[in-house]
Amino acid sequence: MITIKIGGSVVDDLHPSTITDIKKIAESEGVIIVHGGGKEVTKVCKQLGKEPKFVTSPSGIKSRYTDKETAEIFTMVMSGRINKTIVQMLQKNGINAIGLSGVDARIIEADRKKKLLIVNEKGRKQAIDGGYTGKIKNVNSEFIKSLLKKGLTPVISPIAISEESEFLNIDGDRAAAYVAGSVGSDKVLFITNVDGLLMDDEVVAKLTLAEAKEIRPKIGPGMEKKILASTEALDMGVKQAFIANGQKENPVSSAIAHDNCTVIEHE
Amino acid sequence: MITIKIGGSVVDDLHPSTITDIKKIAESEGVIIVHGGGKEVTKVCKQLGKEPKFVTSPSGIKSRYTDKETAEIFTMVMSGRINKTIVQMLQKNGINAIGLSGVDARIIEADRKKKLLIVNEKGRKQAIDGGYTGKIKNVNSEFIKSLLKKGLTPVISPIAISEESEFLNIDGDRAAAYVAGSVGSDKVLFITNVDGLLMDDEVVAKLTLAEAKEIRPKIGPGMEKKILASTEALDMGVKQAFIANGQKENPVSSAIAHDNCTVIEHE
Repeated sequence: MITIKIGGSVVDDLHPSTITDIKKIAESEGVIIVHGGGKEVTKVCKQLGKEPKFVTSPSGIKSRYTDKETAEIFTMVMSGRINKTIVQMLQKNGINAIGLSGVDARIIEADRKKKLLIVNEKGRKQAIDGGYTGKIKNVNSEFIKSLLKKGLTPVISPIAISEESEFLNIDGDRAAAYVAGSVGSDKVLFITNVDGLLMDDEVVAKLTLAEAKEIRPKIGPGMEKKILASTEALDMGVKQAFIANGQKENPVSSAIAHDNCTVIEHE
Repeated sequence: MITIKIGGSVVDDLHPSTITDIKKIAESEGVIIVHGGGKEVTKVCKQLGKEPKFVTSPSGIKSRYTDKETAEIFTMVMSGRINKTIVQMLQKNGINAIGLSGVDARIIEADRKKKLLIVNEKGRKQAIDGGYTGKIKNVNSEFIKSLLKKGLTPVISPIAISEESEFLNIDGDRAAAYVAGSVGSDKVLFITNVDGLLMDDEVVAKLTLAEAKEIRPKIGPGMEKKILASTEALDMGVKQAFIANGQKENPVSSAIAHDNCTVIEHE
């Protein structure tokens, strides 16, 4: 079984061969898809007159600040537009997909972050209300596995439900890691727009879990999150994490064949 | 088992007791919810600068004209906003709900209407391109029943998938009828904002299927569709169809107890 994290736009982010590539794997070993879509959320927020707000953490990581109205738009765009468009694209290619958010059947439960430590406009550290972002605490893996057993391909949007049943924005990469770890995927694959982790302009072909953890703090924000998610997945028992380029032909099977991507393994 | 059709706004359309009322029934016999939400779709269409368009049929029925862009907004608002808000509200009250559109696991397949007969601005009949509205042809009842068996409450948005895997706008009342008929519900309940079918200012307490079919063409548009959906459900084997007011206390159990609503039965 393999869990694949993709971006929000199948058309822009993925090589046209990707869907048939996924189909082969879905038929042989089962696939779970987790998606992102921050850019589209930002676009619709602006169209609806809700200016998106971003905050920067003390370690320099920029992230969306999710107030209640943003959480509602985030949920609408992620589960109603991006999720259904991916499901539709898969269905069109003969993959019996089912789109779910973490709220449905409580498949992803998270704790709401009470406080968020940010660097304010004056460059000072400040604790602000955490808004509607969550830290994943539980995945309903039995239900996800029951869908796979029926031959369905789950497509999961990065929204969790809090203990008080609020919608929470969760990070797509880390959601993929938790889902992969909870259901017992052998592999987790992060599809992105570069070939993998680059060092001195070269793709790092392989990292051990220990090396990945050591190297992580020295890496730039976007890739850092994929390395973090990879190490979290491996810590939960996943055997291999791949970071690969979605613009290449057959990006999933190429990555599994270790073709020009980064693989993180236990040893 | 009971299938309940509700409007798009739990807060505006339903008495505060409705969710706990549904909970009792969900625990004892199993509930499937199908929802509408046209008003919210119209609101978001306008906010996104897409002026909604309505057409009138030769028999005087006004309906949304769904071009491709409208179908996309319809899908986003129905499955991403209304569906998830209902799921969240149920989860908050301890009902393990799962939100699905007809596209997911192909639970509702429909044929795209090729042509639509309308009355144009000059009052003349005209056939126009059917846009993205569908006539339901199949419900994946096995999958819906498997969810109920797991103790889940399915919440279904009125979107179907075409043979070419397009999103199709389908009528919520008729979707509820088809779902009820396909899964073998004993009862289908249409929750609305009046007490039932009114004739001479009085609620018609009971109609037989034959009477309902006879009376239908003489009824105004909104209620006519609920009577049509009721007769379709009964023709598919459902035993009783109820049309009841959602603003009353415990609207579901009151209707089942035949308290001031319209019931349609075979004889």
